[in-house]
Amino acid sequence: MRISFEQMQAEFKRVLLKNGFAENKANECATIFAENSRDGVYTHGLNRFPVFVQYLKDGLINPDAAPSPDDSMGLLERWDGNLGPGMLNARFCMDRAISLAQQHGMGCVAIRNTNHWMRGGTYGWQAAEAGCIGICFTNTIANLPPWGGIDPRLGNNPLIIAVPRAGGHVVLDMAVSQYSFGKLQQYKASGDELPLPGGYDAEGNLSTNAAHIMESKRLLPVGFWKGSGLSLMLDLLVTVLSNGKSTAAVTQAGAESGISQVFICIKPQDDGHTAGLIEQIVAYTKTSRLVEPEQAIRYPGESTLKTREKNLKEGIPVDEQIWQKVLAL
Amino acid sequence: MRISFEQMQAEFKRVLLKNGFAENKANECATIFAENSRDGVYTHGLNRFPVFVQYLKDGLINPDAAPSPDDSMGLLERWDGNLGPGMLNARFCMDRAISLAQQHGMGCVAIRNTNHWMRGGTYGWQAAEAGCIGICFTNTIANLPPWGGIDPRLGNNPLIIAVPRAGGHVVLDMAVSQYSFGKLQQYKASGDELPLPGGYDAEGNLSTNAAHIMESKRLLPVGFWKGSGLSLMLDLLVTVLSNGKSTAAVTQAGAESGISQVFICIKPQDDGHTAGLIEQIVAYTKTSRLVEPEQAIRYPGESTLKTREKNLKEGIPVDEQIWQKVLAL
Repeated sequence: MRISFEQMQAEFKRVLLKNGFAENKANECATIFAENSRDGVYTHGLNRFPVFVQYLKDGLINPDAAPSPDDSMGLLERWDGNLGPGMLNARFCMDRAISLAQQHGMGCVAIRNTNHWMRGGTYGWQAAEAGCIGICFTNTIANLPPWGGIDPRLGNNPLIIAVPRAGGHVVLDMAVSQYSFGKLQQYKASGDELPLPGGYDAEGNLSTNAAHIMESKRLLPVGFWKGSGLSLMLDLLVTVLSNGKSTAAVTQAGAESGISQVFICIKPQDDGHTAGLIEQIVAYTKTSRLVEPEQAIRYPGESTLKTREKNLKEGIPVDEQIWQKVLAL
Repeated sequence: MRISFEQMQAEFKRVLLKNGFAENKANECATIFAENSRDGVYTHGLNRFPVFVQYLKDGLINPDAAPSPDDSMGLLERWDGNLGPGMLNARFCMDRAISLAQQHGMGCVAIRNTNHWMRGGTYGWQAAEAGCIGICFTNTIANLPPWGGIDPRLGNNPLIIAVPRAGGHVVLDMAVSQYSFGKLQQYKASGDELPLPGGYDAEGNLSTNAAHIMESKRLLPVGFWKGSGLSLMLDLLVTVLSNGKSTAAVTQAGAESGISQVFICIKPQDDGHTAGLIEQIVAYTKTSRLVEPEQAIRYPGESTLKTREKNLKEGIPVDEQIWQKVLAL
């Protein structure tokens, strides 16, 4: 079943208006959710929307709240997200970082007391659309054991890096777990095995079974000890720069709310060579002989554009049960 | 065999003075090499020193050259490394970034036409010693196949993130290959198997044999497709920001020289909470139950300090053959 972008956006907006959102905020928030599904990130589009509404009902997200300034020093700004909608807060912060970068070459905006931003890539695309390099990351509730440990004590803290490019922006959007939670949920639902081990089962063996991994809560960090270290660093950066809640504090509070994020924006100087340099890198990467002749080498973000085009033309594929659930909200 | 830090530094300095280095540069460069071995990064200390001297003799590194300003805009600076010694150029750039951060909250310094910086962690520790968050990365010659490809077209581009901490800085220093080249050389020399697959053998099977992986040139990126994407992004960032050579251009030129690097420094505001927040994160991570009771969970940089202390007290362990080689240089 496929739903048009416009219909999906309108449906989200209707539900948000019913749940305390003002007109303009409902519109922006619904657009971000629909765009996430449009771009193929269903786990943080339609599929996550009912969870978001539940958070609203539970009072974990305040639809009226907007960021307020904590303080600022030079090009480092600190904001308090006041537990507002995470995607609106995140969009606001990247906007601030873009403005700083356009004025000064770069800017860094840290926010505390914010909420899940859904698809991190949203804010990378936002920076790239403004002609800027965007780098952002967030912490989460503990969902990843540190290397050498059994119990989750780290977040799978997504890291986004975006570079603007005329023929399609290059946007990396990666959780530091080998598979994001959304991907594991997808595989669990479909019953398919993961292509590569994504964590450990209850007996401590590497596993490709998403359900077993979600049960043991022992997800695998990317690069084993390296991803574990990277997760800790990202948590340190967002916590120190925002003076906000760490993964430890979020976890001890019991729900993934009031998290911390950082948005860095850089406006590259372009003396006419930049586009050529970018094309050289992308083109050279693609000259490697293929392992599987039918599996082309792609740059980060390349498949997003293809999915976007297809979904805009043919409609966005939806899980019918979830779609019905949203219609009933 | 163990050599004192002072003796090692003096020996390096003697060789550098013989190879065209001025007194102060020989001293600084020798200190960085000796510190890398002191901190346990033997692959980029003593073990790499003869290669460095060969690069000097081949004219790939100019001992007299120093960075010259390309241009600057706001807090983004661009420098030309003029093919000078990579570690001196890198130290200079992180110094600039620290100055910018101390004045404005943050700074970003990009350099082109530079050379291998040896241990990337050196510049993370440098920033942390100055009370700053340091983030830096470099490109390299192609030594890593992109995900889905057979031939190396990406670099294993190390990424360094450092956060200052009173009880010992937290410093992540990771190549985006599962094992750095230096580590593979170590395992190849010792004949030990890698603890986890580090790449593919000539038949395309995942392998724990360092020699086979180095032969096939098919190293594994951290997190498979994720590390491949991260490597591409880091190359884009250093190339675009420095207007320098990409991994493609360095590789096509034939030798790992004239590479590009970026140094970002952030001076965190500290209203008295920072130290407590950092301790909370480190302590919480260590509360995870251990997989192996004798293998404690460590934060990035923790073992560096222990190795440093031990090596300063007992002397730095050296490969006797390489040490003799240096004595004869």
